[in-house]
Amino acid sequence: MDHPFTREEFAARIRAVQTRMAEEGIDVLLVAEPSNFYYLTGYNAWSFYTPQALLLSVDSDTPIWCGRMMDAQSARRTTYLPDANIRPYPDSYVQAPDRHPMQIVAGIIEKEGWANRTIGIEMDAYFYTAHSHAWLVRSLPNAKLVDAGLLVGWVRVVKSPQELTYLREAGEIVERMMDRAFEMIAPGVRECDLAGALYEAQMRGTERFGGIHTTSPPFLGIGKRIAEPHPVWSDDPIQPNSPINIEIAGCRLRYHGPMSRTIYLGRPPQAYLDLAEGVVEGLNLALDAVKPGVTCEAIEAVWRKSIAKRGIEKESRIGYSIGIGFPPTWGERTASLRPGDLTVLQPGMAFHMMTGIWQQDTGVTITQGFYVTETGHHALTRSPRALLVKD
Amino acid sequence: MDHPFTREEFAARIRAVQTRMAEEGIDVLLVAEPSNFYYLTGYNAWSFYTPQALLLSVDSDTPIWCGRMMDAQSARRTTYLPDANIRPYPDSYVQAPDRHPMQIVAGIIEKEGWANRTIGIEMDAYFYTAHSHAWLVRSLPNAKLVDAGLLVGWVRVVKSPQELTYLREAGEIVERMMDRAFEMIAPGVRECDLAGALYEAQMRGTERFGGIHTTSPPFLGIGKRIAEPHPVWSDDPIQPNSPINIEIAGCRLRYHGPMSRTIYLGRPPQAYLDLAEGVVEGLNLALDAVKPGVTCEAIEAVWRKSIAKRGIEKESRIGYSIGIGFPPTWGERTASLRPGDLTVLQPGMAFHMMTGIWQQDTGVTITQGFYVTETGHHALTRSPRALLVKD
Repeated sequence: MDHPFTREEFAARIRAVQTRMAEEGIDVLLVAEPSNFYYLTGYNAWSFYTPQALLLSVDSDTPIWCGRMMDAQSARRTTYLPDANIRPYPDSYVQAPDRHPMQIVAGIIEKEGWANRTIGIEMDAYFYTAHSHAWLVRSLPNAKLVDAGLLVGWVRVVKSPQELTYLREAGEIVERMMDRAFEMIAPGVRECDLAGALYEAQMRGTERFGGIHTTSPPFLGIGKRIAEPHPVWSDDPIQPNSPINIEIAGCRLRYHGPMSRTIYLGRPPQAYLDLAEGVVEGLNLALDAVKPGVTCEAIEAVWRKSIAKRGIEKESRIGYSIGIGFPPTWGERTASLRPGDLTVLQPGMAFHMMTGIWQQDTGVTITQGFYVTETGHHALTRSPRALLVKD
Repeated sequence: MDHPFTREEFAARIRAVQTRMAEEGIDVLLVAEPSNFYYLTGYNAWSFYTPQALLLSVDSDTPIWCGRMMDAQSARRTTYLPDANIRPYPDSYVQAPDRHPMQIVAGIIEKEGWANRTIGIEMDAYFYTAHSHAWLVRSLPNAKLVDAGLLVGWVRVVKSPQELTYLREAGEIVERMMDRAFEMIAPGVRECDLAGALYEAQMRGTERFGGIHTTSPPFLGIGKRIAEPHPVWSDDPIQPNSPINIEIAGCRLRYHGPMSRTIYLGRPPQAYLDLAEGVVEGLNLALDAVKPGVTCEAIEAVWRKSIAKRGIEKESRIGYSIGIGFPPTWGERTASLRPGDLTVLQPGMAFHMMTGIWQQDTGVTITQGFYVTETGHHALTRSPRALLVKD
């Protein structure tokens, strides 16, 4: 199997995680987040709707994969793990009321001699449910279970050169998607057909490389749903003289390059032009402030001050760390651009600066994906940061 | 806002859930599953990547929605809830290390006078993490928290006439998607371009209604990944003389009509034709056995006996309940067609009979979505149940 990263890069990631484990007194890490499976082993399948765990001991460089029997094939195909480290559970454990895959995971922990150790759990991993945890707790009475939180996430926050390449490629894909949207939008076109065109462009990617699905569908703020950040489209025809907010991402080997633009169909009223101008101004100023050594909250403060001149306050954060994404979000949940986030920017950190504004009856979304360089930032897309008008 | 169901249908669902709550001694239900939000209120937004809860008391016909501030707009747009029942939390609670949305949820429970009551929690809802639960437990020291399991799921298992209509419409969409795949597949076509064409057809739907995204991407078992059930495509060109397993669904207003077919590009060897014939035979026999009063395990036994004649045993279940789907799966997690599942079929239950076979180096997937009628079953798609050969 072709891996998207060298064996050395995977090994370095494992070591970085183990260093943090040692610092936090964690003997064994139970990884549950699909993106962390991918980051640490290359594991790449849509199997996370049944419980699965990746077990990493502080003193072994090779994790153990535990998942559903039918998906063991994917572990063999997509990871560097030896067969002995692929330990599937039978299908009778899938969605069964009287037994649970975490019993099998606990069995592996016992067999490996870890049942009395300190086990760090990704308690907030999206697919690690309260129910799964209850089964694990019951099955490991002698272990010390602690919340490992975003331990792997904080290792992932600084991207390697290869990861930055994939992010730039994702950016190339999303540029083409937005171009396709602009081309496609016209009065009478059904919202669902616009969505279809976006998806088609997303997978097609470029001549050099194709895309895959993203963590989330395109968010199309159209018509009745213009004022919502996370709506789903309908099959209504697009109406003239209205803004259309589009939040999308290109995805290259699970790396996400997001972008939002508002396309105004028709001639925008002056008040709307002013609103868009204010957003672009704040976005550009905040981007200009990006460089190593600055905190996340300081970047947000630049935006906040700028947009306040227009009498606007954005209640929500203006950005979040990006990189690998599995559903349900391409946000990494570590660093956020918002008050109180004292994360210091370093070269290789990547963000989506999400300066969307949603008001009672309208919205405008013009954003920028970027990563931090030695001296400033590199934009993942070259698309002009502007309101796009199709008159 | 146009709702996909009448107010009466929502009210009947709420009452059915409350009846079960009363039977199980649950005073307040904390709903966490996005599909249950949709089922009970119509709530329809991609907001489940931050914690949210729907609180339903046994003695009130109107639930309380709690979610992120920016998504309150979607609650107003897509549900019948009065403004007083929409209780958002501020963005400072999103992915913050020192506070949690479940504190806000607990605050609502207190304010409503439920802090000493028995609260049923959807402990195994996909986005209800162990971490969320720990915060809730800490914030409600006097409540009795119990696992409500699939309480709402078991109400959902029998579909209403309107739900069956949406399922049939989803079936119409997936038929067209598979036709498009057949048309598109040829040696040299990139896998990603096939994926793009499938997505485009999925959203386009029909002239009468469009589609939306499904819970999961198309599963394309192609080339190196032919033997995996849940792979993701690459940008490699499709090779001749190979089977391609396609598992997809059409989605109409969140209702999923799934279908798998294998398209063989080239002339299949006799052994492969025999394998496919065995699968179709078993599938057809099992479908013929479907009628009210029969158990799920009895249906599976028909398949098992049939395929055993070919010396094959399918380790995994051969089907699962379908209906509303939100990521990460269109399976409802209630009834499964497998040994030990004693669920008795009733008119209005819907399933995906998933008779896929994956072997060491190949696979064949020919399946059928259907619902139970008064006398037998109704197939959601009219596509022939056969190996599709494109020579």
